Amino acid sequence: MRNLLLTISFDGSNYHGWQVQENAITVQQTLQDAYERICGVRDNITGCSRTDSGVHANMYCCNIRTEKEIDCGKLTGALNAVLPDDIAVKSCAEVGYDFHARYDCKSKEYIYQIWNSENKHPFLYKYSLHHKYPLDEVFLSRCAKEFTGTHDFSAFCAAGSSVEDKVRTVSYAGLERDGDMVTFRVEADGFLYNMVRIMVGTLLGISCGKITESVGDIIESRDRERAGITAPPEGLFLNKIVY
Amino acid sequence: MRNLLLTISFDGSNYHGWQVQENAITVQQTLQDAYERICGVRDNITGCSRTDSGVHANMYCCNIRTEKEIDCGKLTGALNAVLPDDIAVKSCAEVGYDFHARYDCKSKEYIYQIWNSENKHPFLYKYSLHHKYPLDEVFLSRCAKEFTGTHDFSAFCAAGSSVEDKVRTVSYAGLERDGDMVTFRVEADGFLYNMVRIMVGTLLGISCGKITESVGDIIESRDRERAGITAPPEGLFLNKIVY
Repeated sequence: MRNLLLTISFDGSNYHGWQVQENAITVQQTLQDAYERICGVRDNITGCSRTDSGVHANMYCCNIRTEKEIDCGKLTGALNAVLPDDIAVKSCAEVGYDFHARYDCKSKEYIYQIWNSENKHPFLYKYSLHHKYPLDEVFLSRCAKEFTGTHDFSAFCAAGSSVEDKVRTVSYAGLERDGDMVTFRVEADGFLYNMVRIMVGTLLGISCGKITESVGDIIESRDRERAGITAPPEGLFLNKIVY
Repeated sequence: MRNLLLTISFDGSNYHGWQVQENAITVQQTLQDAYERICGVRDNITGCSRTDSGVHANMYCCNIRTEKEIDCGKLTGALNAVLPDDIAVKSCAEVGYDFHARYDCKSKEYIYQIWNSENKHPFLYKYSLHHKYPLDEVFLSRCAKEFTGTHDFSAFCAAGSSVEDKVRTVSYAGLERDGDMVTFRVEADGFLYNMVRIMVGTLLGISCGKITESVGDIIESRDRERAGITAPPEGLFLNKIVY
């Protein structure tokens, strides 16, 4: 039995997230269909994380335990030929049998793109949130710094999450500007459901004055009501996975 | 009677080009619908050029002759609010009554993006041609230079064009590389039907050795058969209009 680690990237615009669902096209299902077409077997593909509808990945990892003796380079090429244009396999490598794409993940980095201009950008609307009002990325980076450290992030977790332990360690959180594009970047050992999108909604709430509490106070409250709205999915990219 | 010059940009992926057609959604029709919704009248909108299905525009100009007394800034804002996300109005200005977006155009610049990598790019497939084989952009720029000057471009015009005079003056043609993205840029006083896409197909034909004639000889032949294939539309952007 072999274990293959696939590293992929995808434009999530046309998918209902990673995880297989009934009556909706997902990345996992599309990848499993392509794999089955090539290998003739339906091996399960285990992803590093769930992602929401419309969320993108510059880097996403998954593993496949299989009896199949296919060469890694050939599998990469064949998958890329069979997969739609919006999913790309970047690499395939053989890993130890025990490796698990989700459980063995040491940290993840997300980015969230905010198109900060009065003008619409007709090529970026699927890849960024359009925010017309001024954003002071230096001030907001100072606010975002309060996300770093080990905290109970209950205030930044969507209602309905079944996860009990809401303590996560954020190693980096900050914003950078490149012209009219402001990018929020956050790295942690794990993320709760909608955590990054609520972080972004909170920073935007602070920016426009709707939220007057500090990020630290909101974290401490563990109260979802005190954080900001859940920013829309299209600006969010899973950007890096560390094992 | 006023005459308004609108400068727009659009992602052409979802449109059957600029020009109104029966049974197909076009940019012109979408813009006229939005304008009618705001102004209550269906004034004709005259574009600077036809564009093909799937072709994009970083800059596109059109003019509207109207009795309507709407302020230019307000019209811009209202159109952007009503138009879909993939069409943006960049500006609106009042011009002389005789101004015509197509006839008064002195030159146009197109760019054609070629994603030159063995790897698929899941975010660029609608905005570039994926070319996996090596491209020597310095050599191809030398070939492209033969496009410059005043020539009969019959060899670079799609069959079925009703235009009689096929003489055009190309003021610039060349390629630049930025990492794995190679961009062909061409500026001329006018373009024939599919001219830029046939230029790109010819350069790619020369690159892979399928075409052994020089660009100059192909131009001189006036024979469409001797030029390359028509490159696909998704890499093409109307980039600049000069009046």
